[in-house]
Amino acid sequence: MAISAKMKNFVANGSMIRKMFEEGARLKALYGAEKVFDFSLGNPNVPPPDVFKTTLKAVVEADEPDLHSYMPNAGLPAARAAIAARLRAEQNVDVQAENVVVSCGAAGALNIVFKALLEPGDEVLVSAPYFVEYRFIADNHGGVLKVVPTKADFSLDLLALEAAMGPKTKIVLINTPNNPTGKIYSAESLKALAAAMKRRGREYDRSIYLVSDEPYRKLAYDGAEVASPLANCDDSIVVTSYSKELSLPGERIGFAAVNPAAEDAKDIVAALSLANRILGFVNAPSLMQKVIARLIDQEGQDRGLPACVDVSIYQRKRDILAHGLRAAGYEFFMPEGAFYLFPKIPVPEDEKFLDLLKEENILVVPGSGFGAPGYFRIAYCVDDATILGALPGFTRVIEKAKTLSKA
Amino acid sequence: MAISAKMKNFVANGSMIRKMFEEGARLKALYGAEKVFDFSLGNPNVPPPDVFKTTLKAVVEADEPDLHSYMPNAGLPAARAAIAARLRAEQNVDVQAENVVVSCGAAGALNIVFKALLEPGDEVLVSAPYFVEYRFIADNHGGVLKVVPTKADFSLDLLALEAAMGPKTKIVLINTPNNPTGKIYSAESLKALAAAMKRRGREYDRSIYLVSDEPYRKLAYDGAEVASPLANCDDSIVVTSYSKELSLPGERIGFAAVNPAAEDAKDIVAALSLANRILGFVNAPSLMQKVIARLIDQEGQDRGLPACVDVSIYQRKRDILAHGLRAAGYEFFMPEGAFYLFPKIPVPEDEKFLDLLKEENILVVPGSGFGAPGYFRIAYCVDDATILGALPGFTRVIEKAKTLSKA
Repeated sequence: MAISAKMKNFVANGSMIRKMFEEGARLKALYGAEKVFDFSLGNPNVPPPDVFKTTLKAVVEADEPDLHSYMPNAGLPAARAAIAARLRAEQNVDVQAENVVVSCGAAGALNIVFKALLEPGDEVLVSAPYFVEYRFIADNHGGVLKVVPTKADFSLDLLALEAAMGPKTKIVLINTPNNPTGKIYSAESLKALAAAMKRRGREYDRSIYLVSDEPYRKLAYDGAEVASPLANCDDSIVVTSYSKELSLPGERIGFAAVNPAAEDAKDIVAALSLANRILGFVNAPSLMQKVIARLIDQEGQDRGLPACVDVSIYQRKRDILAHGLRAAGYEFFMPEGAFYLFPKIPVPEDEKFLDLLKEENILVVPGSGFGAPGYFRIAYCVDDATILGALPGFTRVIEKAKTLSKA
Repeated sequence: MAISAKMKNFVANGSMIRKMFEEGARLKALYGAEKVFDFSLGNPNVPPPDVFKTTLKAVVEADEPDLHSYMPNAGLPAARAAIAARLRAEQNVDVQAENVVVSCGAAGALNIVFKALLEPGDEVLVSAPYFVEYRFIADNHGGVLKVVPTKADFSLDLLALEAAMGPKTKIVLINTPNNPTGKIYSAESLKALAAAMKRRGREYDRSIYLVSDEPYRKLAYDGAEVASPLANCDDSIVVTSYSKELSLPGERIGFAAVNPAAEDAKDIVAALSLANRILGFVNAPSLMQKVIARLIDQEGQDRGLPACVDVSIYQRKRDILAHGLRAAGYEFFMPEGAFYLFPKIPVPEDEKFLDLLKEENILVVPGSGFGAPGYFRIAYCVDDATILGALPGFTRVIEKAKTLSKA
């Protein structure tokens, strides 16, 4: 056998979303793209903001001699400084350039953080529903993902989390605003979580680090504030990307920022830089780093135009979808951020329900892929027409499902 | 302790080149940049070719809707097709788009290949002198680097390599043209290596894969041909990057290509794609993939202008340096490619010699960093002035070292 047994197993079983892709491609070929309602992937459909486009053009035109050159593994000093300024302004925490490592997106940042922190067998605690890749990323570096359900409203179950922290717990991983639920964790819950981590850390004589994966931070609705894990927990690391806020998922640009108040903050940054190199990222793409450095001024403010996609577009999409689903009788918590809606499957048979959706050419991801069977995820970062076109199908399916389920 | 014990050790000890950087920065601050002769890093100083620059501008100007979007983990179909066409033309092997995974540089490609192939404890066989990062990359994925010296002229020691292949050997890793020696491996030696791998593979009932790391393929001098590992070994995978041939080391763009004749070629590509995702690369940067796709036509030829840096510049630098070092009495094999020269340290005491170079503000990397004590590496991808300015120092040091050594 060529590939390792573990990878063989991953390839065979870890392809839930890939299967959705393929199913989508098959259906689109069969019925035409406009007849297929593909809500499977979190691929932003809102264009990057104008200020990004003009800055990219300006940087390419200027063609400075070191535009495409090697740099320190932690990133361009100007990019690190801009990111630190942004975090100081945004989260009211005294982050400096030296606390920042520019990364290949949030997935790259998570990999270097786990590589830096985890001993073999160490546990990463996460609340379900959770982003499916976390399990792979923990496993990449010898870690084990340990899953604790959230409360029914998708808020953190603090007692359950504290009870799950054991002598092997090294990281508590949160994702706020959450994929797939759209939940934002309150400042109070973050403070309480930090206190629980301290208590259990003392008990086991080790530091437990809070890792906050927050690529949807700027995608919050109805004026909701996204509480800062950095501001509420000393031993904390933020990982994020520009994929969603600037609609650049293909460019792989993001960062990890270590709380300057964290234990061994300096060692962690050194390890993150080394991990960036030896895991093969070497550094985040240089051209994008130059652009990022120019988008933010020294006070951490966007220069001129907002360096963010138009969030009101996503909020409108959420509202159209939520309104239609409620009218059809679906139950869900209104997402506070991100671009996912995570309704309950209205019957006990998940697969039967998902098959009915597929018969309507509606593609979603089953909640079981997020450690939450009984739910399904709708990624609503799609054209309004796709949302509007799918609502009659969603309505027919809930009625059909209830009839079938009773039969 | 925050970071893992292994990473703590890596950070403390794995920083030979970082120490050189810091020493370089210190010396430049002290004496002025023009008085310091920094040959420590393989950071190309020849600008990217014009055709790259104009294509990048054109792609940014065109601003297609999916320019920065997600894509399949293996890469943009157009980029995979262009890379396959290039390999067919360049190496006379029937590579198709489906055999190619676009990667974040060669370091990214090596990581996904090792992740895909290695079982815990599997061995990666490499010839010394070798690029120091290989050890980390093997270790990232549970592998163990096993080192076999080359012959005195830096050609492959085929008997020693075959003798070193055991029941745990999964990969034989070569780097041609070689960093740090500049050696190019002959077609005959590759054929013989492939035969040895087959023999030993049969003996242990497993396939051994040849992984060829070849980012310097286009940097070959005096018309030297770089034999194709793909053409000479069925179970083979090429990993490479555009960092050197297009002078883009900061952009992290390269690829892995699996020989279509390899056992389980299709499985390997599926595993590489998955590894690209879960290791956090997700996909190679999209903008650069669009550019790469446009540089090559369907016959695998450069469109119009050469899509490669001006190699004659590096050849001239090599010649100036080689001429000067020979005149001073240094012994070395003339590099056939890449941009490194790897002379013998002329006295038995490596450190004493390197200290003398440092006294002349000449920064090089000790051969011990490449598994080859008794040598040192000069990266001559620097201004001519740096080479010319350093030659008197090199001359003084060899005389001083011989005097001191006799004393």
